[in-house]
Amino acid sequence: MSHLLFDKHRATLDGALHAIATRGYWSPYSEMPSPKVYGETAAADGKQAFEAHLGRNFELDQPGQSGWGGKEASPYGVALDVRYPLCDHEALIAAGLAAMKGWQAVGAAGRTGICLEMLERLNRQSFEIGHAVMMTTGQGWMMAFQAGAAHAQDRGLEAVAYAWREQSFVPAETVWEKPQGKNPALVMKKQFELVGRGVGLVVGCGTFPTWNTYPGLFAALATGNAVIVKPHSNAILPAAITVRTLRAVLAENGIDPNLVTLCVAEQRSVTQALATHPAVKSVDFTGSNVFGQWLIDNCKQAQVYAELAGVNNIVIDSTDAYKAMLGNLAFTLSLYSGQMCTTSQAIIVPAGGIETDEGHKSYDEVCADLAKAVERLLGKPEVACAVLGAMQSTATAERVEQANGASLGRVVLASRKLENPEFPGADVRTPVLLAVDAADEACYMEERFGPISFIVKAADTAAAIALSERIVSTHGALTVGLYSSSQDVIDAMTEATWRGKVALSINLTGGVFVNQSSAFSDYHGTGGNPAANASYADSAFVANRFRVVQRRYHV
Amino acid sequence: MSHLLFDKHRATLDGALHAIATRGYWSPYSEMPSPKVYGETAAADGKQAFEAHLGRNFELDQPGQSGWGGKEASPYGVALDVRYPLCDHEALIAAGLAAMKGWQAVGAAGRTGICLEMLERLNRQSFEIGHAVMMTTGQGWMMAFQAGAAHAQDRGLEAVAYAWREQSFVPAETVWEKPQGKNPALVMKKQFELVGRGVGLVVGCGTFPTWNTYPGLFAALATGNAVIVKPHSNAILPAAITVRTLRAVLAENGIDPNLVTLCVAEQRSVTQALATHPAVKSVDFTGSNVFGQWLIDNCKQAQVYAELAGVNNIVIDSTDAYKAMLGNLAFTLSLYSGQMCTTSQAIIVPAGGIETDEGHKSYDEVCADLAKAVERLLGKPEVACAVLGAMQSTATAERVEQANGASLGRVVLASRKLENPEFPGADVRTPVLLAVDAADEACYMEERFGPISFIVKAADTAAAIALSERIVSTHGALTVGLYSSSQDVIDAMTEATWRGKVALSINLTGGVFVNQSSAFSDYHGTGGNPAANASYADSAFVANRFRVVQRRYHV
Repeated sequence: MSHLLFDKHRATLDGALHAIATRGYWSPYSEMPSPKVYGETAAADGKQAFEAHLGRNFELDQPGQSGWGGKEASPYGVALDVRYPLCDHEALIAAGLAAMKGWQAVGAAGRTGICLEMLERLNRQSFEIGHAVMMTTGQGWMMAFQAGAAHAQDRGLEAVAYAWREQSFVPAETVWEKPQGKNPALVMKKQFELVGRGVGLVVGCGTFPTWNTYPGLFAALATGNAVIVKPHSNAILPAAITVRTLRAVLAENGIDPNLVTLCVAEQRSVTQALATHPAVKSVDFTGSNVFGQWLIDNCKQAQVYAELAGVNNIVIDSTDAYKAMLGNLAFTLSLYSGQMCTTSQAIIVPAGGIETDEGHKSYDEVCADLAKAVERLLGKPEVACAVLGAMQSTATAERVEQANGASLGRVVLASRKLENPEFPGADVRTPVLLAVDAADEACYMEERFGPISFIVKAADTAAAIALSERIVSTHGALTVGLYSSSQDVIDAMTEATWRGKVALSINLTGGVFVNQSSAFSDYHGTGGNPAANASYADSAFVANRFRVVQRRYHV
Repeated sequence: MSHLLFDKHRATLDGALHAIATRGYWSPYSEMPSPKVYGETAAADGKQAFEAHLGRNFELDQPGQSGWGGKEASPYGVALDVRYPLCDHEALIAAGLAAMKGWQAVGAAGRTGICLEMLERLNRQSFEIGHAVMMTTGQGWMMAFQAGAAHAQDRGLEAVAYAWREQSFVPAETVWEKPQGKNPALVMKKQFELVGRGVGLVVGCGTFPTWNTYPGLFAALATGNAVIVKPHSNAILPAAITVRTLRAVLAENGIDPNLVTLCVAEQRSVTQALATHPAVKSVDFTGSNVFGQWLIDNCKQAQVYAELAGVNNIVIDSTDAYKAMLGNLAFTLSLYSGQMCTTSQAIIVPAGGIETDEGHKSYDEVCADLAKAVERLLGKPEVACAVLGAMQSTATAERVEQANGASLGRVVLASRKLENPEFPGADVRTPVLLAVDAADEACYMEERFGPISFIVKAADTAAAIALSERIVSTHGALTVGLYSSSQDVIDAMTEATWRGKVALSINLTGGVFVNQSSAFSDYHGTGGNPAANASYADSAFVANRFRVVQRRYHV
């Protein structure tokens, strides 16, 4: 049965394998919420499916359940009131371990086929999951559909493709024949079994509950492990829908559904107990540096794949498309109110200003013009609400207030609160831009999550590049950008990013933004600076999640 | 120039890539010290080259040298008196980091070609290195030549092949073209740079100074890292010869030779400072559990690949080749005086005895017959000395004395001291066999390194298999064996090894031994039990040693 699913989805798998090897654009899951792709009734059906969860117990039929819990507050001010099963984490681990035997037995091809079926089923739920992501994270609808559904599925598929590629290198068996000169050769049959390492724990974040969860979830699953998903306390629903679908696909294929479970943990101590449990062999985490470092320091029994905070930055040296550059930056700073792990926080500009196609622009002019570009982009309220979404947490809103108070630098553009007519309870904020000197490191050289960015005045371009590299090396970054018309500057920045190990976007002035990372083509994080110790996705993301156990005997 | 070397060695690389994918027998480096292969004068030349090192300073021209040190005591009682450079470890790290830029610039193919050239040059030095291994470790000559030279080169090549395979998956560049409906497509050029993570530290062991060093050394090197080799204090010479050759090949190819250095550390604190240095990003270690666990617990900045101690074991259920089984076991227990990390320590036999082709044999008969088989194998002194080699350390000799004293179990076969006429100073010991009950766990359930083995009496075969699994899961093992004529028993043991994650050898009665692991075919260690957290070699052994740094821009 499982191999039937492998055959069924073979073209998708082959497409993904080709894409990760050639890294051009590719995706099997449409990012457009179009009725032509998803069906005429898909939008309405998906919204209804989402709404049907509200005010209800979300049944999962997991072992060790002691009651119901979980309390999400929607950034859009919508009442969700979904209650989730609270299960003893030891029971989830025991059930996961027990389910691994059958999961091993279907083999890598069987597991891959079932994972691909899971992804197809999640794709059919894209509207339902899109609404769940939107309402729990505060993302705008289009972003929630794209990043929360289609692109998350892409990242899950990417992990499955890597996992398959590595597992498929190990032959099931071989005959080993060693010549012995004039004597008969030594001949042995050898068989190689792929075995998952144990339980994989996947700890989700509050802003991207699927996009940052699916890579680890599918990497661990495809390589033969059980998985416990521990969602962020404010973004449970997208994970719960996902887990329910995965459990259904497992059961349909004769696999114990307890291979994948949801752990709603109301205390951090439960997550800590899970993460350090001897049976847990991998931890995938997206979130704060404090807890991420705790995991790296304490989970000695597990491989930890952590995406933490960083200070993404951009160096502006010069440009031959000044307006387009400002427009591109304005969108980057505004999208989802800067609540992306890839949003630029520090924009480094030489004190002497920059050369552009519109003539020389002083540092102050760059500041003022960027502020104007943001205001222009967000001039229409309906556009602004769609782009900005809502504040995901009160902590982020408080940071914006603080920045508005000029305590962190001269306010070039103050954040404004906007009304969202459709969601009166939404806390919508425009970006705040602050001008600071490079010496004011205390202001800009730590992550200030949310729509808070600094235009940092550096001595010159060389100093700007050096500052960018130091930020990356000491505080980490998932993205850096450069605007320059000089090949020498581009080369210098390129070498700086090799040393700092961070992805570089050069002269983005069109429809691609520094905070966007495209599955199968862009490596999200390098794993080489403090912002992340792993990448979505590469061989290292999957290769250490399974073991090869061999047996050999004479024939 | 580097690409010329890639082309020169392409056939060797292709052979290795084919071998790791199909896992049949293959080796480009002859394990026979034959003049036909290595040249008529190779044996004499190699011995002379080895002897030329004795009583001299071993020049390496490394930075930060403060003096000379290192004092090896040959297990054969031969005066070595080689002195090695003592270098400031900070200077070695700084020099290694500086050398990485040029190493990155030659690219994966260039690095692979240079590594293959290094291996070819080491192969030409096989006699010299074989003598160095023999004289520092106490291995017999044939084993020192095979394991210390040819097989170590195989393992190094295997790591290079894995490293090349993983690196070659990352294209240098691509064009990413995303359709935009009726609008022009978004088109970007993306370039992907492979970047080493930093300095790799390789900590060698006293028994296999090349075989256990080359995998980590070549894996780290081929993936773009600098490497510092920290040899065991009593087996420096084989590592020093290796490092000198690698430095020569680097220099010939325009690479700063300080990419690879030798660190002779007279205090453990220096090794600890190296292993926890922020610039050190990988640590390859073979040795004791105590220091290995210290590394895992403290080297949070680095990926640690550790091969530690274990309790290898064999379950005997039944056999249809009793004599051959005993002969095979006798050789395993005797080879290099049981001083291999793969030597069986616990042989588990049902209390009710076993069925054989020679009729039923009681537990006591199995004990007595195995003792006789060992005595028979070691009956001729010249054979005994060639097989046994010498005690690598006084600690091992002391453990043998202790075991002879019956404090750990009933002595079935006492260890004897033998004279080696060629090396009067050699401390040669035959194996000691002890009979214990399964309940006497304190005796046999920790590694007692050396020629000390236990014949453990278990209730029955099922209990024996359960005991084997528990030993593997709690104390670790690199190898387990099984003798059985019953497919049900073979299946039960196979499943136990999947759970315990340990390699299984079944019914070895001929010229293959449970303690032997053949490069390109056998995975040495699974990385899934306490004896080792990594395997020689698999994708996981190389994939996390480099990073992909991308840049992208519109075209």
